[in-house]
Amino acid sequence: MNGPGTDPRAVPEGCTRVRLDLAYDGTGFSGWARQPGRSTVQQRVEDALSDICGCPIAVHCAGRTDAGVHARGQVAHADLPDTALQRRTWHGLTAQLNQSLGPQIRCRRIEPAPEHFDARFAAKSRHYVYRICDDPPNYDPLTREWVHFHPRVLDVSTMAAAAGSLVGEHDFAAFCRAREGATTIRRLDYATVCRTSSDLLEVALGADAFCHSMVRSVVGALVAVGEGRREPSWVAEILAGRQRDSAAGVMPALGLVLERIEYPPDDGLAARVRESRQMRKLKSNLD
Amino acid sequence: MNGPGTDPRAVPEGCTRVRLDLAYDGTGFSGWARQPGRSTVQQRVEDALSDICGCPIAVHCAGRTDAGVHARGQVAHADLPDTALQRRTWHGLTAQLNQSLGPQIRCRRIEPAPEHFDARFAAKSRHYVYRICDDPPNYDPLTREWVHFHPRVLDVSTMAAAAGSLVGEHDFAAFCRAREGATTIRRLDYATVCRTSSDLLEVALGADAFCHSMVRSVVGALVAVGEGRREPSWVAEILAGRQRDSAAGVMPALGLVLERIEYPPDDGLAARVRESRQMRKLKSNLD
Repeated sequence: MNGPGTDPRAVPEGCTRVRLDLAYDGTGFSGWARQPGRSTVQQRVEDALSDICGCPIAVHCAGRTDAGVHARGQVAHADLPDTALQRRTWHGLTAQLNQSLGPQIRCRRIEPAPEHFDARFAAKSRHYVYRICDDPPNYDPLTREWVHFHPRVLDVSTMAAAAGSLVGEHDFAAFCRAREGATTIRRLDYATVCRTSSDLLEVALGADAFCHSMVRSVVGALVAVGEGRREPSWVAEILAGRQRDSAAGVMPALGLVLERIEYPPDDGLAARVRESRQMRKLKSNLD
Repeated sequence: MNGPGTDPRAVPEGCTRVRLDLAYDGTGFSGWARQPGRSTVQQRVEDALSDICGCPIAVHCAGRTDAGVHARGQVAHADLPDTALQRRTWHGLTAQLNQSLGPQIRCRRIEPAPEHFDARFAAKSRHYVYRICDDPPNYDPLTREWVHFHPRVLDVSTMAAAAGSLVGEHDFAAFCRAREGATTIRRLDYATVCRTSSDLLEVALGADAFCHSMVRSVVGALVAVGEGRREPSWVAEILAGRQRDSAAGVMPALGLVLERIEYPPDDGLAARVRESRQMRKLKSNLD
């Protein structure tokens, strides 16, 4: 249907693009992206929308979370046939979708997307939080699926200093799983480490985009610092060296939550999509 | 071994009484109390300690939670043979117990109990929190096992006013499942309703003891008020009437967490145990 030269992600005739705000418990899923023979969030949302609309629906998200990673602020888009929308209110559609999705995935909102909206390419920034309980006696069975339990007390101040040294545009190759032909240059807007209660640490990272496993690798390096196994300056050193360091382990997925995706104002969406597509040609794996 | 006239809960010869601080995700359990053919917290803790000690160990708790109710601050005691303790450090014993208990139940601490300690009869007060999310779009899949999802917005101020009218020593028959020959008089020390974030309500109750399903019945009545179905004064009226009112439904177990048990100072334990036993004779179902 899309001829040569047309936007491969343009809204097809007779369809309306919708924005979906999603939250999910990633525990039982092999991540966002559809994979043959595995239960994934994309597959569940696409199957539910396809059932409701009576035709195959593709869903594109802003941040393709890995297996076991959670989301409170995932954003996705889909092009739904107007024939399916005409028979329903937005509220009714959301309720029907949630009934089909079950308790692990929640669609918080479906609404018509503004012109030029693309969940992935229009996104300005992605925001993740990694939570760690570092006080063994305070392990809480109620949060065990989304708070990582670390057996030793961590030093927040050295971790925060090390985190700060990563902010800015850098080649994050030392913190990424390498992919052939893909750049690992990213712009990290902030990296903070706070103790939000006596036994709970939150590592918060925001960036234009993240490479594969980048957040968990950065947190792994910060934990090495927080344990006193490495100096805070070591984190900047491995960043500069662009080589993975085995002392910076990749943290388990369960502590990680995609909290928020940010978009430019509606009149800036088209420009942001163009910019992302341009960057994607250069970087080839923007996400 | 206990002759007539001796304390049936005295520490047997050759044993040390230990205090256990426990947290659990009640989701998969048929409550605290051992029941034939069901998975319960007491059964799991007793079986684990019995395996470790090589002999049957009974465990007594302060608050016998119902099926599906959680705990962050459950307290229990057990009398362990000195032969088993001599071979272990407290730290080692805790680690061994936790390994056996699995991720749903956590023993946060085992320590020698002070003289006259009895988890149930020495307890001065029990503290529960019931959590409700009353903003449908903000339903969080990550807290779905311990935050009750209520589909309509609740009015915290009327709920708080109604809750306040329950404080004091009253016959809580209107909020209890009746038991033959058991009193339903309890002393409610506080009952507060707070919005801890834009979409989350916490109903906190503290009392000398609670009757069966009392917390969930009180919260059910407060929700009827918070929805505007009843006036705040109605809660005091049904309390005075001592009859269950179908408008005050019993809330689902999943929102309820036993947060804390309080004990008197060590030199007040013996007196508190005597007082509780005396009250138990009168009330016959103190818990």
